[in-house]
Order: sequence, then structure tokens, then C-alpha cells
Amino acid sequence: MNADKIPDIIIGRLPIYLRALQRMSAQGMKTTSSQELGDYVGISAAQIRKDISQFGEFGKQGTGYSIPFLMDKLREILKVNRMWDVAIVGLGDMGHALARYGGFGERGFRVAMLFDSDPAKVGDKVGSFVIEDISQLVERVRTCKIKLAMVAVPAASAQEVADKLVQAGVKAILNYAPTVLSVPEHVHVQHIDPSTHLQRMTFYLD
Amino acid sequence: MNADKIPDIIIGRLPIYLRALQRMSAQGMKTTSSQELGDYVGISAAQIRKDISQFGEFGKQGTGYSIPFLMDKLREILKVNRMWDVAIVGLGDMGHALARYGGFGERGFRVAMLFDSDPAKVGDKVGSFVIEDISQLVERVRTCKIKLAMVAVPAASAQEVADKLVQAGVKAILNYAPTVLSVPEHVHVQHIDPSTHLQRMTFYLD
Repeated sequence: MNADKIPDIIIGRLPIYLRALQRMSAQGMKTTSSQELGDYVGISAAQIRKDISQFGEFGKQGTGYSIPFLMDKLREILKVNRMWDVAIVGLGDMGHALARYGGFGERGFRVAMLFDSDPAKVGDKVGSFVIEDISQLVERVRTCKIKLAMVAVPAASAQEVADKLVQAGVKAILNYAPTVLSVPEHVHVQHIDPSTHLQRMTFYLD
Repeated sequence: MNADKIPDIIIGRLPIYLRALQRMSAQGMKTTSSQELGDYVGISAAQIRKDISQFGEFGKQGTGYSIPFLMDKLREILKVNRMWDVAIVGLGDMGHALARYGGFGERGFRVAMLFDSDPAKVGDKVGSFVIEDISQLVERVRTCKIKLAMVAVPAASAQEVADKLVQAGVKAILNYAPTVLSVPEHVHVQHIDPSTHLQRMTFYLD
């Protein structure tokens, strides 16, 4: 498998399949079909078979997919068969919500560090973590070899934070600030944007 | 145009194009090409031309797309050439962050009502809105004909909240709770899930 050859749009669907399989597994299911998985995630069975076959022959004609086996394979492909440390920058409402979010552990992520620029927040605890001063970010993130960060600062300071993260060796940024970030080509950015999700639904409304 | 005939996966890309065009416009740009727009959003020029042509002939060979014209058309298609009222249920950290989020207005949305079940929160103000008791939800949402809601309650109460919203006539739910919601077929649900976005990026890391 050559990562450069797989279209990013397919990569983007794999976490959705993995999430669905984890839910099926939690419900006690052991096997599924591309049809059933497709109904679950709203993607055609043919598309699912095509996407998954990019990585190998994981299903059997007639019996479908073993859920634990396919989960293992997807975790391996997405590299979440390990635990990734994540830094959160910006401990406003959103940063607090992320720091306390219960859905990371079983998906391969662990909040490891919190940073804010507000002296009134630095030193406060959120869960078991102490908020550190943003002036320490580059050194701390680099020392701990953290590769992932979530940015939940105001739009006006998001680029400056992204620059520091890149300097510290971060390779992937999940951006909650309502702004575009400029990063070098080797750094990945995803935006979380509630308006985009809402607009996808208003299309269907009267 | 028949909404039933357009694949949902195409609908899902239109808000991403619209967001990119709004940013280009904010930077003073007047026209763009499918190539330029594609580079901006990480989707091929051919795919963009194909997606947009589902709805009409909005570009010109040689000169590309007029940004204001294409923005108007996309807003019309996505029905965000009007303002949609949105209810927020659950005023924890995430609900507060959403209530204060600055990116809704220019995208077609207006936070209109806040609900929580915690008596300690009911009556508090967030911005210019008072948090109302969730026992009032069905009547208030129905009376004000609100069709969109964001759910930011704990996973354990999300289904109950979704049931109330559906009963009140809500047609689209943006779900921040880390759980699946069962809703009737005519109700649309989108999940906001940071782990899914992070997993899409770990694929590319070492």
C-alpha cells in the first residue's frame, strides 16, 4: 500500500466506517455486510467495497466482514492501533469541552497538554491537567514529541498559534477557530465548522 | 433540479465550496477557476466542475466563475439565502462555546433559543439569551417553528433530547454528543466528532 496513491477522499471515509463498526461491536454484532454498513453510514455498498478493497481483501463473498477483524485492519491503516498524545491550545469554552471530551480514548487519542496565553488561566487544572503558559509551548511540545494539536483560540490568534505548533514539530492540527491556517505542505489541517454541517442539512429543508 | 436525484456526497461538498468562496471574496477576489478553488479545498478541478454542473451552467469557459454569482447560487441551492433560527440544547462547555460562536451569522444561522435541564443553569444568560428549562422545549420550539437544533448534552440523555426535538417539529440536528441518534427518516442528523477528523490525519503521520 502506498499512502500517496490513495485519494484523500477515501481516507476521509475510513474513520466513519471505523466509528460505525465500533458502534456495531458495542451492540454485540460480530459480522456485517457492505450493504448493512452502508445503510448505517449513508454510503453505497459498492463505494464501501471499493474503498476497503484499496487496502486488501478483508471481506468474504457471502459472509461479509468480520467486525473485529475489519476494525483491527482500519485501526492499523489509520495508525490508531497506538495512542496519540494531543495538545490543546486555548482553554475557553471550546478548549474546556475538548479537554473533558469522553470520546478520545477508545479512538486512539489522549489529551496530554493544555496551553493558554491568559495569565488568569495558567496554573488552573482541567481534569488532571494543569494549563501551561503558551510561551512554553514550543519547548514542551517538542520535548514530548507531540505530533497532534487542537486549536481552540480566537480567530485573530490562530495563525500565530499554528506557527508555534509547526515550529514545535506538530504534523496535524484540528482547527476550531473560524479562520484559515497557512501551514507548510507536510502539516495537515482539518477544520471543525458547525455552519458547514448545518448547511449540508438545510439543502433538504423547505 | 430534483433534490432527490443529487447524491448526498455532492451536497456535502457544496458548503465547503461556499466557505472557500466567502474567504476568497473577503480577500477581495472577484473570479476564480475550478483549478484554483480545487487547490483551495483539496478537491480536483474536474470533481468541482462536475459537482457544480449538477445545478446549472454557472461558469464560463476561459473566464471561470464569478465569485459573487457562484456564492449567490450556492446559497440559494443550500437555502442559506435566508436566516435559519437554531436552538441549542445543553449549556455545558460545548453549548456555551456554540452559543458564543462568531461564525454563524454570515453563513445563514442565528442562535435563537437555549435549553438545559439543570435548574442551576435555567434563567442564566449567555450573550443576550436566557437559558430556558428543557420542559418548555417542545412547546417553545414548535411555537417558534424552529427547524434546526444543536445537541450538546451528555451521551446518556441525547436520545431523549432528540425525541423531544423531533416531536417539536425539528428537521435537522447537529449532534455533538458522542452517541448515535435514532430519528425518523425525514429528520437529518450530522455528527461532530473530533476523533474522526484526527483519524483522517494520523493516516499520513509516521
